[in-house]
Amino acid sequence: MGSFAGFEPLDRGARGRPAQAFDRWLLALLHKCLGDAPVRLVLWDGTDHLPPAHPVATLHVRDRKTLVGVLLDPDLNFGEAYAAGRIEVQGDLVALNQAVFRALQHRGYTAVPWARHLSLPLGRNTLRRSRHDIHHHYDLGNAFYRLWLDRQMVYTCAYFPDAAATLEAAQEAKMDYVCRKLDLRAGERVVEAGCGWGSLAVHMARHYGVSVRAFNISREQVRYARGRAEDLGVADRVDFIEDDYRNIDERCDAFVSVGMLEHVGPRNYRALGAVIDRCLAPRRGRGLLHFIGRNRLRPLNAWIRKRIFPGAYPPTLRQVMEGIFEPWSFSVLDVENLRLHYARTLRHWLERFEGAEGEVARMFDERFVRAWRLYLAGSEAAFATGWLQLFQVTFARADRDDGPWTRAGLYEGPRRQA
Amino acid sequence: MGSFAGFEPLDRGARGRPAQAFDRWLLALLHKCLGDAPVRLVLWDGTDHLPPAHPVATLHVRDRKTLVGVLLDPDLNFGEAYAAGRIEVQGDLVALNQAVFRALQHRGYTAVPWARHLSLPLGRNTLRRSRHDIHHHYDLGNAFYRLWLDRQMVYTCAYFPDAAATLEAAQEAKMDYVCRKLDLRAGERVVEAGCGWGSLAVHMARHYGVSVRAFNISREQVRYARGRAEDLGVADRVDFIEDDYRNIDERCDAFVSVGMLEHVGPRNYRALGAVIDRCLAPRRGRGLLHFIGRNRLRPLNAWIRKRIFPGAYPPTLRQVMEGIFEPWSFSVLDVENLRLHYARTLRHWLERFEGAEGEVARMFDERFVRAWRLYLAGSEAAFATGWLQLFQVTFARADRDDGPWTRAGLYEGPRRQA
Repeated sequence: MGSFAGFEPLDRGARGRPAQAFDRWLLALLHKCLGDAPVRLVLWDGTDHLPPAHPVATLHVRDRKTLVGVLLDPDLNFGEAYAAGRIEVQGDLVALNQAVFRALQHRGYTAVPWARHLSLPLGRNTLRRSRHDIHHHYDLGNAFYRLWLDRQMVYTCAYFPDAAATLEAAQEAKMDYVCRKLDLRAGERVVEAGCGWGSLAVHMARHYGVSVRAFNISREQVRYARGRAEDLGVADRVDFIEDDYRNIDERCDAFVSVGMLEHVGPRNYRALGAVIDRCLAPRRGRGLLHFIGRNRLRPLNAWIRKRIFPGAYPPTLRQVMEGIFEPWSFSVLDVENLRLHYARTLRHWLERFEGAEGEVARMFDERFVRAWRLYLAGSEAAFATGWLQLFQVTFARADRDDGPWTRAGLYEGPRRQA
Repeated sequence: MGSFAGFEPLDRGARGRPAQAFDRWLLALLHKCLGDAPVRLVLWDGTDHLPPAHPVATLHVRDRKTLVGVLLDPDLNFGEAYAAGRIEVQGDLVALNQAVFRALQHRGYTAVPWARHLSLPLGRNTLRRSRHDIHHHYDLGNAFYRLWLDRQMVYTCAYFPDAAATLEAAQEAKMDYVCRKLDLRAGERVVEAGCGWGSLAVHMARHYGVSVRAFNISREQVRYARGRAEDLGVADRVDFIEDDYRNIDERCDAFVSVGMLEHVGPRNYRALGAVIDRCLAPRRGRGLLHFIGRNRLRPLNAWIRKRIFPGAYPPTLRQVMEGIFEPWSFSVLDVENLRLHYARTLRHWLERFEGAEGEVARMFDERFVRAWRLYLAGSEAAFATGWLQLFQVTFARADRDDGPWTRAGLYEGPRRQA
């Protein structure tokens, strides 16, 4: 990716007083704060700080207030300043993010047990709070998401059978991959928790002959999904229900949730596990959770939580095992880490988003464009560098024994059943 | 499997006094203690207790002392009494074990946090203790293991590409599967912790062109493994080292451990993680742990710990994530549960063992034969019912990005490199 359309070189020295010794000291601090990443830092008057290695991009800070703000709370204020145009990036925004993530990756891990709890999100994802949070992000308007998602509006990590697949093909392949991992059989009942615009639910009903009850608390998404099921003639086999996962109480053969766990919050993992336990058929019941995760405990970036995904939290596998699977003795069958597939998905989204920046600016404003550009670019960098993970976990009742003998079938030709 | 060779119907009434009302009450208690499993229970005088469902086998208790002992500590004393011939099983020993595991599976889970710690093993696997424990099991004599293992003496779960594969083929396939999961490339350095009789180390060197440093504290196994590497002409590329995993300090591209974690003990998981961290190359380093595990916290059966595997403990995935992977931010790439493959492996072992019972009895004694028969049959039942799991976990340095794009290559034809 080249430099971004929105970037214009700053008018050097036009703003504020010339940088002082104090500002230069702050600038060196900022470089430390970025993990000594190979990034060139430039102040409002042209004063710069060069990294030892060849810089991958240049970061311009417009004024001292911004510099101090970023130093006081980098997690929150970098995004705030970037969105406001108080920080500009010259060069590749993804590469800059990658350089910083790589640099910070090698910082030590706090192994002090009490300090780990600091990593937990502080908010409580209550029913009401969740509805607000989900509305904040997913109800920005279907027209907006249509500008840069694939045709089927799948807003989760795609699966690229080969790296050159198109986004449309990779989202289709992801849905098939999930259906295969679930080992769906015609006539079975599926519950989906957090169904987005309904693409997976419709796909399962159309191609695998199952009946689906799909839950979502985003009103706009549910309305859209219902229309889609009607259009494709599967409305009799797919019910879209506007309700919270905590209220699901339906017997099913398979339970699936793609991209919802990030919004559940660790405090509610036991509640989610209890929902799965009360829904899942004995013996043959199985399920799949697909979610953004971490290698180690760390809260989601504060700016992302404030501006993009309120209430979101990517867990470690340990937290998911402890909260969701162990208490009900579910048997974990398969865990796959697809982080590089998510990096590629995000690259597709970012390219499409950049192509539609003008339209997005007309729908919202320039600050929104800049915020979402940073969110998409930062996310691509996070998955590419291993700062974030994408886990698919397949599980089953402890005594299920009619599953496939090996995983080889996941990689054979099309196996749709209906 | 039919009834076992060693069984002879008891001489009813020949032992002890006729059963009293008290004995009948104890008998009903024993049935409860077995989870009301469909097993017929018979006392020394022919008094019996029939389950509501058709019994899969009959269990004869020879005297009141045995009955009371099993009730007081079923975990320990069932095995003790069976090995001593104070309990006899008429019918299929595996089916009986399966029935009991299935029945107990549905008992509730203690969710009280403090009570969970009770599930942790109490012993400390110190260097000295580990050496003693490993000697107890693995130094029973290679001649003994040769009677019922495959030709290559692989004493861990095999991988059956199809369910009808022979044990020899399945062990060969398992070794290839592990090498593929490790994504081995010719010229790389591999460290193996706990190498058994050396089959995997030799396989990697012969077929994947890597050099291997393999560690084991069983003297008999190391001696045998060295001989094998000589015979097969790979002694220059495989070093077998008689030492504890805690002393490993070798830089490697891949770290592998198959069937050792069960002997490490949760208290030492951090130590094992630290060993892996200090060995594994930056960026491209990756590894695989293959181990018996659990869906939820529970100690290994007390009798198995006393008579078969001192110091052994099958962890949950959560414990492994918490102790070994999270502290060093290793990225979990793939978890696969192969428990049904272990049930099948054990069925092969048990059939061979039964065929060699006479020889085993000559090497040891009848009590040893009965103990090992129960251990193998009980283990098959435990994996078949989901009482135990077999996990293969593939992991890597957090920033590794030169791995295969999908898992499809694991299921393509032979891919050996040397």
